Amino acid sequence: MPGLSIFGIPGLPEITAGTDLAGSIHAAAAAAGTPLESGDILVITSKIVSKAEGRVVELSTVDVSPFARQYAEKWEKEPAVIELVLRESRRVVRQVGPILITETRHGFICANAGIDQSSSGGHGLAVLLPVDPDASCMRVRTALQAKGLDVAVIISDTFGRPWREAQTDIAIGIAGMQPVTSYIGQVDPHGHEFRVQALCTADEVAGAAELVKGNLSRVPCAVVRGLPWEADETATMQSIIRDSERDLFR
Amino acid sequence: MPGLSIFGIPGLPEITAGTDLAGSIHAAAAAAGTPLESGDILVITSKIVSKAEGRVVELSTVDVSPFARQYAEKWEKEPAVIELVLRESRRVVRQVGPILITETRHGFICANAGIDQSSSGGHGLAVLLPVDPDASCMRVRTALQAKGLDVAVIISDTFGRPWREAQTDIAIGIAGMQPVTSYIGQVDPHGHEFRVQALCTADEVAGAAELVKGNLSRVPCAVVRGLPWEADETATMQSIIRDSERDLFR
Repeated sequence: MPGLSIFGIPGLPEITAGTDLAGSIHAAAAAAGTPLESGDILVITSKIVSKAEGRVVELSTVDVSPFARQYAEKWEKEPAVIELVLRESRRVVRQVGPILITETRHGFICANAGIDQSSSGGHGLAVLLPVDPDASCMRVRTALQAKGLDVAVIISDTFGRPWREAQTDIAIGIAGMQPVTSYIGQVDPHGHEFRVQALCTADEVAGAAELVKGNLSRVPCAVVRGLPWEADETATMQSIIRDSERDLFR
Repeated sequence: MPGLSIFGIPGLPEITAGTDLAGSIHAAAAAAGTPLESGDILVITSKIVSKAEGRVVELSTVDVSPFARQYAEKWEKEPAVIELVLRESRRVVRQVGPILITETRHGFICANAGIDQSSSGGHGLAVLLPVDPDASCMRVRTALQAKGLDVAVIISDTFGRPWREAQTDIAIGIAGMQPVTSYIGQVDPHGHEFRVQALCTADEVAGAAELVKGNLSRVPCAVVRGLPWEADETATMQSIIRDSERDLFR
């Protein structure tokens, strides 16, 4: 059983708008003595993708709507942040006390539309999720292909979930690999169909990568090596987002 | 960055009621050339724990209640399985068409109370979740301690989740390690509190282990090596189960 290895990529430069993400990651991995290899899955924390893509907003420039202002004042939140959360969302899923769970324009359901005020490079700034995380992944994948590397790319973020405390990292963007491993139609030696019909490999990979990235260690990229993945040049996280008609908890 | 390695433990014998789980896993890992080491996290698929603990029910022996029979017939389900699902549950969370989501007696929210008919060793049998997965983990941990090994133990199962298609492996039992890594009170270099306050390391480890176990490969145990964990002899998954008062989606 060869197994997997998972390791972080330390030594990335500070990422700002326009940073060549693929080039920086490729160089940092090489400098760390663990160059990227074809077959790797590269997992990138969404925040640095957002920063590279200029998805950082100065809160003082945000025109706050009356609804956002009223809610923010009631619960002692930053009005501009609430405004941004609403703008980044297509639907409020739950709004209970200070908790605001929305469906982002991508279709992800999470607190505060994934907007992050911490580590945004200074006070008064907020980092929004990438506009199109699948496309962001594909840009990194394509840039690495140009260096002769066939690497699958996942962008991860840290989301809460119903029923369980604490959060986990899951995938919000993907390129190059099928996000799901399907067992549909396969049967066990006794002829029963498997109870498990499809596993979200992309989410498990994102969570595994978090174990080495951590949130304090300032290592925003990790490599999962040794996991065979199913190539898919048209992969998208949209196939993971459950239709609201099929969702019992929306 | 040393990183993690994750590998499966192949070659386990067929597990039946009374099998010495810790002894079998210890021996199989050694025979595979990857003996367990202190500091490892051992992840065990719940099904083999259930089998070792005799949590296998012959469906023909189950006395089916009228409610279970009526529902099973309407949706072409096995009546005895529906009866077992209800008996293993303390509350039905959603019952929509053929889908039955319940809160198990442990407090886990999942489809069909985690009952598995596949790979149960023959037709007409169902495998129930372990009665007390934390205690099951502690028994394995204690048996390994007797062999001089300090190994954290997680029992995993494959659950669905709202909003996203496909399933992931999560933890349903733990021994020896804190299931959560907390960042509460820590601040970034700019003085902001982290948006992420607590990560469910146990769930991320369970998902990572699934990547090497798979559902078809018949490798029901995996080792996560190289991840520092916070020792906690009183750890329990109960700290992960969100109070219903704090849960917006129950």
